[in-house]
Amino acid sequence: KTEYDTEHFLNLPCVDASGLFCLFTAGAVLYRIPLTWGQNKLPWKLLHAALMLLALVLSIVGLCAVFDFHNAQKTPNLYSIHSWIGIAATALFAMQWVAGMAGFLLPCSPISLRKRLKPMHVWLGGSILTLSIAACISGINEKLFFVLKGINMTQPYSALPPEALLGNSLGVLIVAFGLVVLKILSTREWQRPDSRPEDMAYTPLLQEENE
Amino acid sequence: KTEYDTEHFLNLPCVDASGLFCLFTAGAVLYRIPLTWGQNKLPWKLLHAALMLLALVLSIVGLCAVFDFHNAQKTPNLYSIHSWIGIAATALFAMQWVAGMAGFLLPCSPISLRKRLKPMHVWLGGSILTLSIAACISGINEKLFFVLKGINMTQPYSALPPEALLGNSLGVLIVAFGLVVLKILSTREWQRPDSRPEDMAYTPLLQEENE
Repeated sequence: KTEYDTEHFLNLPCVDASGLFCLFTAGAVLYRIPLTWGQNKLPWKLLHAALMLLALVLSIVGLCAVFDFHNAQKTPNLYSIHSWIGIAATALFAMQWVAGMAGFLLPCSPISLRKRLKPMHVWLGGSILTLSIAACISGINEKLFFVLKGINMTQPYSALPPEALLGNSLGVLIVAFGLVVLKILSTREWQRPDSRPEDMAYTPLLQEENE
Repeated sequence: KTEYDTEHFLNLPCVDASGLFCLFTAGAVLYRIPLTWGQNKLPWKLLHAALMLLALVLSIVGLCAVFDFHNAQKTPNLYSIHSWIGIAATALFAMQWVAGMAGFLLPCSPISLRKRLKPMHVWLGGSILTLSIAACISGINEKLFFVLKGINMTQPYSALPPEALLGNSLGVLIVAFGLVVLKILSTREWQRPDSRPEDMAYTPLLQEENE
């Protein structure tokens, strides 16, 4: 039972975190696809909100699995810096989703609010991604040290058995992928043309569907 | 001797990492200080290079302390994802410093190369900062788990003794400070006016000292 639980714990958050990472990054770079630029923005905003909601649900499922595992093992929760960073990332993500929904999708939200909100939304999104990278790396690191102790005929982390190589490779992929996404988000030429700051100055009309 | 070594190991990289983090971030936001905008850029470039060189030396001193500690304890080096991220950050930092020196300070480097190099230099700088945040968080996390095992009448990490609170607080500060610096770097209005992309288009003259 304990062995099953340990394997289950090792696998579920890994698959869950990878899936949510893919959904989050796909949602983040959605507006940077030139194919979508000529079209009405509203369907893409709904897809962005849907991908992010799915990623948020997956991160809450992952957190529940961690709390269940700790409680079953009588381990305290939320004391390590890994857990602080992870819980901060998830809380900010939930706040960001609610604020984004209210600010950018509710028809009653005024255009002036949307303009002020947008740079903060993009920055907070990048910050949540950075927090997630730090939480993933510290989580993979501590899990591999906990599981691969080199006792009971198992290899220690330092011998780099297959689980260690898999975990380390997942960490390298998450970091590399995250840095590419942060680059895509910060490059102005890759922003949707009607959302670039310099073009905003030339379109003072109320184009609510393009905000 | 071992107790001294452990304390020494806990303190030196912490102080070292905090110092290098401050130097790196100070160097990174140097060009964003409006006070410096009216002046010749060259002295500020030299100060940027000097602060970064000092930060690079401190990170190499920190790495040497880690290798010495591992070798003294007969612990293998460079197998954990924490060490992979940390060594990648330091290697990229060293490459970035050499490339920045050659590209932006050597008088023979042509202006066209400087223009192409600059967005990559800014992005790689932000990426090195992101890698450092992930390395710091995973390092603080693993060190506190290693040291605070709750044996020999010491408190475990989960009881949050003073060392744990200090380490966690340092981690929170590093993350918060790092995110603010990434925001400062990515805000175009805070760039040196003669370096903003839209102004570059209006100054096609060879202003080598301003690149």
